[in-house]
Amino acid sequence: MSEFKPFKRLALIGIGLIGSSLARVAKREGLTESIVCAAPTERSRKAAIDLGLVAEAHADAAAAVKGADLVVICAPLGAYAEIMPAIAPHLEAGAILSDVGSVKASAIRDIGPLVPEGVHFIPGHPVAGTENSGPEAGFAELFEGRWCILTPIPGVDQQALDRLAGFWTRAGSKVEFMEARHHDLVLAVTSHLPHLIAYNIVGTADDLATVTKSEVIKFSAGGFRDFTRIAASDPTMWRDIFLNNREAVLEMLGRFSEDLALLQRAIRWGDGNTLFDLFTRTRAIRRAIIDEGQDTPAADFGRHPETKG
Amino acid sequence: MSEFKPFKRLALIGIGLIGSSLARVAKREGLTESIVCAAPTERSRKAAIDLGLVAEAHADAAAAVKGADLVVICAPLGAYAEIMPAIAPHLEAGAILSDVGSVKASAIRDIGPLVPEGVHFIPGHPVAGTENSGPEAGFAELFEGRWCILTPIPGVDQQALDRLAGFWTRAGSKVEFMEARHHDLVLAVTSHLPHLIAYNIVGTADDLATVTKSEVIKFSAGGFRDFTRIAASDPTMWRDIFLNNREAVLEMLGRFSEDLALLQRAIRWGDGNTLFDLFTRTRAIRRAIIDEGQDTPAADFGRHPETKG
Repeated sequence: MSEFKPFKRLALIGIGLIGSSLARVAKREGLTESIVCAAPTERSRKAAIDLGLVAEAHADAAAAVKGADLVVICAPLGAYAEIMPAIAPHLEAGAILSDVGSVKASAIRDIGPLVPEGVHFIPGHPVAGTENSGPEAGFAELFEGRWCILTPIPGVDQQALDRLAGFWTRAGSKVEFMEARHHDLVLAVTSHLPHLIAYNIVGTADDLATVTKSEVIKFSAGGFRDFTRIAASDPTMWRDIFLNNREAVLEMLGRFSEDLALLQRAIRWGDGNTLFDLFTRTRAIRRAIIDEGQDTPAADFGRHPETKG
Repeated sequence: MSEFKPFKRLALIGIGLIGSSLARVAKREGLTESIVCAAPTERSRKAAIDLGLVAEAHADAAAAVKGADLVVICAPLGAYAEIMPAIAPHLEAGAILSDVGSVKASAIRDIGPLVPEGVHFIPGHPVAGTENSGPEAGFAELFEGRWCILTPIPGVDQQALDRLAGFWTRAGSKVEFMEARHHDLVLAVTSHLPHLIAYNIVGTADDLATVTKSEVIKFSAGGFRDFTRIAASDPTMWRDIFLNNREAVLEMLGRFSEDLALLQRAIRWGDGNTLFDLFTRTRAIRRAIIDEGQDTPAADFGRHPETKG
């Protein structure tokens, strides 16, 4: 790994699961001399201080970015349009400004136009998370072995880009570069559509009258429980993702529904071959994900400790 | 726990994930004096013997059931119509005949009419499994804390029912009794629909041209990878489940699709409230499943060992 010069002051705008994990790993790896944050609630600010994550916790984002040479927005996408006008006048010349949002075209739309001359804006997205939220939910190992996608805008300062990539690498991530629109398509498939489907199936089950809610919960180990993890993800964050990646999500959802109609027809007409062929094909994808190190090889995600691979 | 008299000879028709797990726990807990199995492939029979799971492994199911006082069919639902005529003439008077299939009305349809006088047929379904299959994939703890649903037919011998319930309880399961048709509705929601959706989304992702397969795999930690586990389940078993629980699955799929159309519309029209309300409601279901002991409280299924709850 090449030389890495720690940042002087890292300002995290938002200190939830991602922000607090970033604070933890930045501290552990000595990636910055100091860390400050801004958070909209007193509860979060207090937690950030009490957990020893930051030296200062501000209600006002503008106060947090003063003197910071790395600013990372770790807030729901819907808050960007409010955060950016507030911090823009206070960003330091030479500072790197990034974010961790799951949609990059909208991040560029909301942040880009307000970036002051001399500030290096590099949109980013660590593909990592859990179903929990808040400063207490973070942990330093969250980014370990996970991809962090940077979607630099043409003409970006190469040195700033290298520096931010180095930061993420030291946080445990593998760094990938991508065009923003392509990122949003990729994530629509690998993240947004799965979340939408999970939220939907859990909602459908919750609505049933013929089968009681207690039955749904009791017998969830037949498969349903897997979906509930994702469907327990932060509601605000996910609302904002769907509103901001509308086109790509609708496109993927259209394909999903077409394919589902085919399966529905196969079930109705007793076409076992269509079912069997699909079910055989999908098994290989799981294998590839494990081979890539993107999931555990243990059966049932290792829920049964004795089967850990 | 009341007294339990071990069976003399347990015959497992099929020695895959469920059959071999049952063999392991029956041996560990001393639930039977001997265990034999029937399996259609030489490979499975050899594995069952080599792993020390059974005393005898037969190609012919009829040979396995001779002298058995407990026979459990652990084969895909589609094989029942072939297995039953083969074993029926050889079942011992007084024996208990059960199965582990995920659809109970079809099990009763295929097995019921051929059950000889004096044999106690009690359909069963342990709601447990992993994405792996075959005799090597089983483990004695598979049923620990999971529900086993028995769907006895009116007029069944109460002593035989108590005996089978006692067997499953000692295998680690919690036993529940249910009417077969209701079971099939409950499982359509908690297991069959989730599997269908998972297979479908993995298939959709696999088909994309705009996003490459390697991208889908690399960035699967955003949510997609959760679905691939379920979509790696045994293709034959799942084909047979969908073909045999057609009506209930189509009914649940209809509801799912209606609800999805509503979400699609909310995204298209930028209706954040509808999204937020659903996403808030679904979080509570996860909590209830954890409180019921049906999933791990650890974040991300405990994939990150340091976050284990």
